[in-house]
Amino acid sequence: MVSVAVATLGTSCSVCSAPATCFGPICPGFIQTRGVFLLPALSFIAALQIKTTVVYPATEKHLQKYLRQEVHLIRETWEDYKNITLPFIQSQSFSIQWVYNILEKKAEADRIIHENPDPCNGFVLVPDFKWNQNQLDDLYLIALIHRRDVKSLRDLTAEHLPLLRNILQEGTEAVAKRFGVPGSQLRIYLHYQPSYYHLHVHFTALGYDAPGSSVERAHLLADVIDNLAMDSMYYQKRALTFALRADELLLKKFQEEGRV
Amino acid sequence: MVSVAVATLGTSCSVCSAPATCFGPICPGFIQTRGVFLLPALSFIAALQIKTTVVYPATEKHLQKYLRQEVHLIRETWEDYKNITLPFIQSQSFSIQWVYNILEKKAEADRIIHENPDPCNGFVLVPDFKWNQNQLDDLYLIALIHRRDVKSLRDLTAEHLPLLRNILQEGTEAVAKRFGVPGSQLRIYLHYQPSYYHLHVHFTALGYDAPGSSVERAHLLADVIDNLAMDSMYYQKRALTFALRADELLLKKFQEEGRV
Repeated sequence: MVSVAVATLGTSCSVCSAPATCFGPICPGFIQTRGVFLLPALSFIAALQIKTTVVYPATEKHLQKYLRQEVHLIRETWEDYKNITLPFIQSQSFSIQWVYNILEKKAEADRIIHENPDPCNGFVLVPDFKWNQNQLDDLYLIALIHRRDVKSLRDLTAEHLPLLRNILQEGTEAVAKRFGVPGSQLRIYLHYQPSYYHLHVHFTALGYDAPGSSVERAHLLADVIDNLAMDSMYYQKRALTFALRADELLLKKFQEEGRV
Repeated sequence: MVSVAVATLGTSCSVCSAPATCFGPICPGFIQTRGVFLLPALSFIAALQIKTTVVYPATEKHLQKYLRQEVHLIRETWEDYKNITLPFIQSQSFSIQWVYNILEKKAEADRIIHENPDPCNGFVLVPDFKWNQNQLDDLYLIALIHRRDVKSLRDLTAEHLPLLRNILQEGTEAVAKRFGVPGSQLRIYLHYQPSYYHLHVHFTALGYDAPGSSVERAHLLADVIDNLAMDSMYYQKRALTFALRADELLLKKFQEEGRV
């Protein structure tokens, strides 16, 4: 199965070739939503077993996300992290209240698959919102840690090994028990850079080509554990690679420092 | 752009719904090749900017490759490598004569993009056969090392750092010079397990969701270099993760040893 996110701006209908003024039932081949044409042929896509994610309503931010943009690889040293990335993270008001709401059971309490309540080495495992739980092909869960002082991979040391091992072991067992998917068919990883700076771990079906599972963003939890066991300061020494889209502010910061 | 490899067995035409006896020009909606129906709607696919790879003629091996199969993650320790993987590699007669033909200019000499002829620290950079060179979106090149005693990531030590650094630096420069693609838009990585056991490095366009670029198979060359610079024996100590399809013989070996 291949995932295609469709949130495409168009000026004409792809099926009947009429301009954007071609609306509604006279042309069954397209859907028009707030000026955004979702290019269809959904039956053919279904025949090809392509999973389509339709974003509706699509905001400007969604369109930006799916429009083709230039991407740039950054090789971030520890000094880059301290001098560029960390000040940038601190200067932004990334709200993670929604994470705290889950951890405090103020939201989504009924969706929790597993919890280890330990305030230091515990976590909550919930289905990711991208997964509708109707099929296992695109299984996607997130483990959110209880402690609130770990932003990302860059903060991890050997001190966090019990926490990380709990997530790996208990998370794997919980997914096997609830969904019948064994650990050998799970991709368990962290993102760097993450989407939000409260440490979390992704659990996805191995057969699912999940967005963000490519080598320039994903770090297998088992590798992270082994690296920290080998050298507690591994993630405070090593350069880390990640990609940034042309419109991302962090890229501008790296460019200003002459690091791209 | 999303890549879709189409090599689908079908019993009826997806366009006109006729059974497999519906052939030829009466139904423009499908192509029939040696009993393999390539499900089409290619104009719609083009509208969605999906790149389609059509395999023709498709052998049973091709069909197996693209048919959905169960995959299993292996976490291979160094002991597993010595006791299971290495004997398996040695027992198989994987022919890499085609690699030697390129290195010796007996084949594809006109396709070489760059060469460092040093027998120890040199390499040849050639376009991968999956890339037709008509567009840069799916740019794909391979660096093949001249020396013949390095099978995979597992053989690498600090001794190989000059070779690896040459590939990273000269390969990046050669791609920028010939194709105008800067290093910040290249994903440069090794596979483990590789498809063939003569060390080679993949260069792909960063925006291209290349097969085998996910975290359970790809290892960024920059990370490999840093790991070896930190610890010469890194790849003789560390467990490595990879996925195997249900029909792969190596999986059977791991199962026989009770490691899956």
